[in-house]
Amino acid sequence: MMPTPLNLFNIFDYSQKMWPEKWIITRTHEGTHRYRYRDFGERVRRLSSALKTLGVEPGDRVATLAWNNYRHLEAYFAIPLMGAVLHTVNLRLPSEHLRYIINHAEDRILLVDEELLPLLDPIRDQLPTVQHLIVLGDQPDLSKSPIVPVSSYEVLLGGAVPTGDFDPDLPEDSPLGMCYTSATTGNPKGVVYSHRGIVLHSLAMGLANTSAIAENDTVMPVVPMFHANAWGIPFSSIWFGANIVLPGPAPTPADLVRLMSEERVSVSAGVPTVWLGVAKALEKDPTPLSLRMVLCGGSAAPPALIRTFEETFDVPFAHAYGMTETSPLATFARLKSTLFDLPKNEQLAIRSTQGLLVPGLFMRLVREHEDAPWDGKSMGELWLKGPWVADEYYHDPRTEDSFEDGWLKTGDVATISPEGYVRLVDRTKDLVKSGGEWISSVDLENAIMAHPDVFEAAVVGVPHPKWDERPLAFVVPKEDREVRKEDVMALLSENFPKWWLPDDVIFLPEIPKTSVGKFMKRALRDQYHQYLSSSQ
Amino acid sequence: MMPTPLNLFNIFDYSQKMWPEKWIITRTHEGTHRYRYRDFGERVRRLSSALKTLGVEPGDRVATLAWNNYRHLEAYFAIPLMGAVLHTVNLRLPSEHLRYIINHAEDRILLVDEELLPLLDPIRDQLPTVQHLIVLGDQPDLSKSPIVPVSSYEVLLGGAVPTGDFDPDLPEDSPLGMCYTSATTGNPKGVVYSHRGIVLHSLAMGLANTSAIAENDTVMPVVPMFHANAWGIPFSSIWFGANIVLPGPAPTPADLVRLMSEERVSVSAGVPTVWLGVAKALEKDPTPLSLRMVLCGGSAAPPALIRTFEETFDVPFAHAYGMTETSPLATFARLKSTLFDLPKNEQLAIRSTQGLLVPGLFMRLVREHEDAPWDGKSMGELWLKGPWVADEYYHDPRTEDSFEDGWLKTGDVATISPEGYVRLVDRTKDLVKSGGEWISSVDLENAIMAHPDVFEAAVVGVPHPKWDERPLAFVVPKEDREVRKEDVMALLSENFPKWWLPDDVIFLPEIPKTSVGKFMKRALRDQYHQYLSSSQ
Repeated sequence: MMPTPLNLFNIFDYSQKMWPEKWIITRTHEGTHRYRYRDFGERVRRLSSALKTLGVEPGDRVATLAWNNYRHLEAYFAIPLMGAVLHTVNLRLPSEHLRYIINHAEDRILLVDEELLPLLDPIRDQLPTVQHLIVLGDQPDLSKSPIVPVSSYEVLLGGAVPTGDFDPDLPEDSPLGMCYTSATTGNPKGVVYSHRGIVLHSLAMGLANTSAIAENDTVMPVVPMFHANAWGIPFSSIWFGANIVLPGPAPTPADLVRLMSEERVSVSAGVPTVWLGVAKALEKDPTPLSLRMVLCGGSAAPPALIRTFEETFDVPFAHAYGMTETSPLATFARLKSTLFDLPKNEQLAIRSTQGLLVPGLFMRLVREHEDAPWDGKSMGELWLKGPWVADEYYHDPRTEDSFEDGWLKTGDVATISPEGYVRLVDRTKDLVKSGGEWISSVDLENAIMAHPDVFEAAVVGVPHPKWDERPLAFVVPKEDREVRKEDVMALLSENFPKWWLPDDVIFLPEIPKTSVGKFMKRALRDQYHQYLSSSQ
Repeated sequence: MMPTPLNLFNIFDYSQKMWPEKWIITRTHEGTHRYRYRDFGERVRRLSSALKTLGVEPGDRVATLAWNNYRHLEAYFAIPLMGAVLHTVNLRLPSEHLRYIINHAEDRILLVDEELLPLLDPIRDQLPTVQHLIVLGDQPDLSKSPIVPVSSYEVLLGGAVPTGDFDPDLPEDSPLGMCYTSATTGNPKGVVYSHRGIVLHSLAMGLANTSAIAENDTVMPVVPMFHANAWGIPFSSIWFGANIVLPGPAPTPADLVRLMSEERVSVSAGVPTVWLGVAKALEKDPTPLSLRMVLCGGSAAPPALIRTFEETFDVPFAHAYGMTETSPLATFARLKSTLFDLPKNEQLAIRSTQGLLVPGLFMRLVREHEDAPWDGKSMGELWLKGPWVADEYYHDPRTEDSFEDGWLKTGDVATISPEGYVRLVDRTKDLVKSGGEWISSVDLENAIMAHPDVFEAAVVGVPHPKWDERPLAFVVPKEDREVRKEDVMALLSENFPKWWLPDDVIFLPEIPKTSVGKFMKRALRDQYHQYLSSSQ
């Protein structure tokens, strides 16, 4: 067979020849911008030419700091097609992390939405590798740029001759892009995507068994293009000829509903918060939609949300799971046809799991270096392997913590059912390891928070002289309500074996949280480290 | 990204873990045989173990001579999974070609359906590389084997310990299988399939944009498993978890209709003759079916056949094109959603073409070493490139005739529409090249055969002193009918420019044919070689 490399040229060349008439539609502050694939392709070729003039060479990192819009999509293709590396920078990162990742990646050029320029102000003098800033906007005021030299994207494109010399033989193991993922402690960690990985991931997204992105779709990625390739949607949509709707800067639920309705969106993808917002907007103002599928990932969607979409709005709701390290699609919750006869609530329970492994990948459930059974009960860390799974962090010694024997240790604790459905139960670092057995802090927290008088609750493991670790529960009652330890224990006794029950319940006015609102369990573990050390 | 190889282990391991409950159903002389993927997997492991005991090493060729049945499917997996090469032998070949390909491939072991043993009789003493024959059957009479030593497949499997050591790291460029394709002259030519090619081809078959083979399908390949991997259906069905229905030995149209009805087949694939037969059977005896798609390839389906399936039976009919050298899927005729508003007859005309290129491949339309425009009119030879396209014939000097600059020259003359739809108009060898312009012999033949009094007609190019070549028409009138040259010319004048019209019309009692019933145009060219050499 021919040694044709799997690279982005495959996707771009095919798309330009097969689907020149299809549409790319962007919500902007000024209204809706729309153009055809044909125009997109010409601008991709202009951008590549302009970047070359600015000195970009194969292997150079070129960064984007942008919302989901057509200029960002052009960068998604122009940069890798010329052999350079697309570094999508998360605009929600704190300044010190922005500074770290731009320097760590050694970005040479930054492409930045005009309205996001202020994010660079605090670090303007601390980006030694950056040689040029390009402002994405219609007629940006370049004098506001915190970095010089600076150019207007549109002026650059206007003056460029569309390149015709993308290399069809770009080796498939060449880097295509990179994305940094937040770490539990310390700086973000970089993941490098290869051309081969992205091509295979794009094929996986087009399978009828998964999201089935196809020519007759109109796809709206609400998931940001600075998060793990917007779940790969830009690449697979362009390849398979779907119309693309890009929701632009900071879309509200009402913006999303309007776009879905006006543009007849058939597939949209986002995190649970997005769909909670959309559900509220639709309940307030019912709008007929053409959705054939909602894709939800990033964190677990509550079953009630799935039910609302399926039963109230009649929209199939598909749960998926992945991470920056997995490009990201790793599992997809489609109900097997052999399970169609199950009662609705059991179907819903399966659809609420993270789903089945995507074809092309391998998975293991690992506990104490052994494979745990796929019985739907045994917990283990989920390990993944495959051609779109990272095998290292970019120039980072933390690689050795997360990779072993060619596998990615996801840090997620899961069960796998005999049918193959993955259900996440905890993060490895939050799991309570008691006398060799594992207790899910998340399951206990969810059960406690079901108490009508509980506002929030966290469960952490602390050292115990006999059992290594035992769980402690921290509970915040609702204002003016009282909750007693006995109430909590009684509630948990109904659902869990005795050895799962926390050794104590501690009432707090508030659970300590991180800057993005997640429970800061480490603070609780540190503070209560000695709590059980004298008990027997 | 991880260097995980694309090999059949990916497919098999995934399938065994995800879909152990799915079904493989085979029509046999004794009735319907059915078992689950789980049982299939265990037998695959037994077969591999048995072959190893017989001395099969990685790289060895192991041949099959069998109908579409579950034992053949087991061989499809067991042989490549152990690193050996699955050589599927076409049971319709004449003895001298059977002998040639078994010797040319240097097959070490033959797996043969019991009822096909007589095919080996004429060449029993002429297969020096064959060390063992294995008879596929329930309780075969081994004394009838033309070759010794001989074993019963079932006895071998019964005595084997299922192997557990398939190599997950089998390099993706390793040979997986091979298939010989008939040549215009001389012996068949061998094509070797790689693991990588088959994995990528399988992904392409699962795309929503093409055949969309998925877990909720029941797929019946009528196309023989000895023809270009049964169009890749066994591999993609096993990967994506479809139930598989194998129609067994020499199925009649009535057998096929019964299987489709009883097993609720959702996708079936075969050549036009199959669907003509099925259409007749359904017209005679209407039967409710669950087909979501009929796949048709191998040669062009008449538009009337497509219309019958779509309008009379309400079954979407999808035209596809490929060849042994392309694994085989190369194009697939799905109507773009942007064309849904066309009048029905124009839609039908597009759906009757060979279709759009499949994602992952490249194509060119080449004429006199230049690219011809994609205008739906300009003819050129179709050239193909991609990871599941062969780059040579196995140990065969004819390689240099068919490959150039990394492309496969298909030998098919086509037009490509601005939308990208490929329409085959001739074989290069049959094309008439007149004064630098190309004339499609097939188009002229079809037009002449539309005359009510014409039984059959052939058009060939013969040398001409001024125009290099000019067409001659050969016409066979129906019994007791008369057709005049003027009638033929008048008919053609309505549809073609003047310079397309044949220089003469010659009436024959019969068009010479090959052993498989195709027009032997070479005989006509040879016989009439001088016919126009004195005319000016």
